[in-house]
Amino acid sequence: MNKLTIQHVKKRFGRKQILNDVSFELAPAKIYGLLGRNGAGKSTLLNIMTNRIFANQGQVLLGQTPVANNQAALSELYLMSEVDLLMKHTKVKDTFAMAEDVYGQFDFANATRMLNAFGISEKDTLAKLSTGLRTAAKLTVALNVNANYIFLDEPTLGLDANHRELFYQELMRTYEERPRTFVISTHLISEVQQLLEDVIILDHATIIKNEAVSDLLANAYEISGPADLVAEYTAGMQILTSRQLGKIQAVTVVAALNDHRVLPDQVKLAHLDLQKTFTALTNGGEKHE
Amino acid sequence: MNKLTIQHVKKRFGRKQILNDVSFELAPAKIYGLLGRNGAGKSTLLNIMTNRIFANQGQVLLGQTPVANNQAALSELYLMSEVDLLMKHTKVKDTFAMAEDVYGQFDFANATRMLNAFGISEKDTLAKLSTGLRTAAKLTVALNVNANYIFLDEPTLGLDANHRELFYQELMRTYEERPRTFVISTHLISEVQQLLEDVIILDHATIIKNEAVSDLLANAYEISGPADLVAEYTAGMQILTSRQLGKIQAVTVVAALNDHRVLPDQVKLAHLDLQKTFTALTNGGEKHE
Repeated sequence: MNKLTIQHVKKRFGRKQILNDVSFELAPAKIYGLLGRNGAGKSTLLNIMTNRIFANQGQVLLGQTPVANNQAALSELYLMSEVDLLMKHTKVKDTFAMAEDVYGQFDFANATRMLNAFGISEKDTLAKLSTGLRTAAKLTVALNVNANYIFLDEPTLGLDANHRELFYQELMRTYEERPRTFVISTHLISEVQQLLEDVIILDHATIIKNEAVSDLLANAYEISGPADLVAEYTAGMQILTSRQLGKIQAVTVVAALNDHRVLPDQVKLAHLDLQKTFTALTNGGEKHE
Repeated sequence: MNKLTIQHVKKRFGRKQILNDVSFELAPAKIYGLLGRNGAGKSTLLNIMTNRIFANQGQVLLGQTPVANNQAALSELYLMSEVDLLMKHTKVKDTFAMAEDVYGQFDFANATRMLNAFGISEKDTLAKLSTGLRTAAKLTVALNVNANYIFLDEPTLGLDANHRELFYQELMRTYEERPRTFVISTHLISEVQQLLEDVIILDHATIIKNEAVSDLLANAYEISGPADLVAEYTAGMQILTSRQLGKIQAVTVVAALNDHRVLPDQVKLAHLDLQKTFTALTNGGEKHE
């Protein structure tokens, strides 16, 4: 399988720079998280990568081949998104047939089993389904289509906790049976943390982190204690967030702590999980979509 | 402050029984979770409690007074829901003025501070805001309105992780300053677990649990080990879910374990969190909305 390479992608809507020189690579058979605040440009990026909209500059390559308007390359890429390209009266089983048409193959047996687990009938029209069940029907297509790169934009929209759990199980199951690349863009970061190998964080139109989740979390800390001692221990580090709890100061950092600084007894170090690391990294400045 | 009492409420849409003899009480100054699968009847129940739709049978009382069509009682109840009753061109600041009109008082200063934290301008129209920011604007109204019972139906719809965290902080802040009752209906159960004192679980049109979160979780377990030993130890208990992992059987129960049964060495007990307890309790049968 080929790598997917995103090179210097820029996109502007009107005066607003949505993506500003975005470059990264996706390796075959890996599960990525694509994280960002509302309005950070995640959906725009996914749409550019799958040829639904065009970049102002830059390109997307599958191996050495530009993806734009290249049907052979595009048939390796599948995007499940909030936007419905299908007509209202389309039945769920029609979406299976369409996926087979475009991608050459479709796992009908597994898709039928999944639909059943979600409590959906093949004969239901997409319009008739609730938001949550429509998401479940789309996920069923996405996990059974024959593509090496599957992009899932908000895959848990409207799903209740039981259906989210079922989705995570089905994702791991299909990934183990046939490893391929999944890119999951979601706001429910705590829930997907354990599924992700690498994380790509978009903020203010650029990529601010692109690394293994384990590497990122190895350096993500909350440091708390008396304010003066915390200030001394964190001197020179970039403080991401800071809050005062009575006499205790708690700050977050993403930094290697392996220098020779000694941690005073009254100062505590605690690792952050992925969601808290993300919010700490992206709390500077709110955004409108 | 008066209790809110829901008595024998029944609601049917066409042939479908949405609520079947639902009764419970809400105490003043307490935070409740109202949990249920998609389609379980949560929104219908909230709409009945706030007089937006009518029950086929049963009633809702504030103290001794029926709430239906009673303006004085209704001015104690505020529902924030996904449905927008407001016109598209309404500005955020107009929603504040409307809340003051109807509820007699509104905390403009705190609302302005919250808006600012969410990155919203008072002059923005609701139509212009993204789903997430529209939710944030509605939350700002809900947390600053002068009512003793505040119902939040899917209060995190479209919010990114940073804004969800901000909402949880703002809820706790306003609750500490002026304790009143909040009922939170959400699918993001893990995230709200620590906010909730009591939980009401709706399933198949009826209430299956109504108790303190701590009491429910004290009895919620996963029991795992060799299948025969697990079966022996759980004999007579209602098994909620069961899964096989190689030679290990893992089952979930909500049951008091304080009898004289001895736990064999190879069998492990682990407490479930609220989300896992909920999914275990409600996994029997999928539902369409």
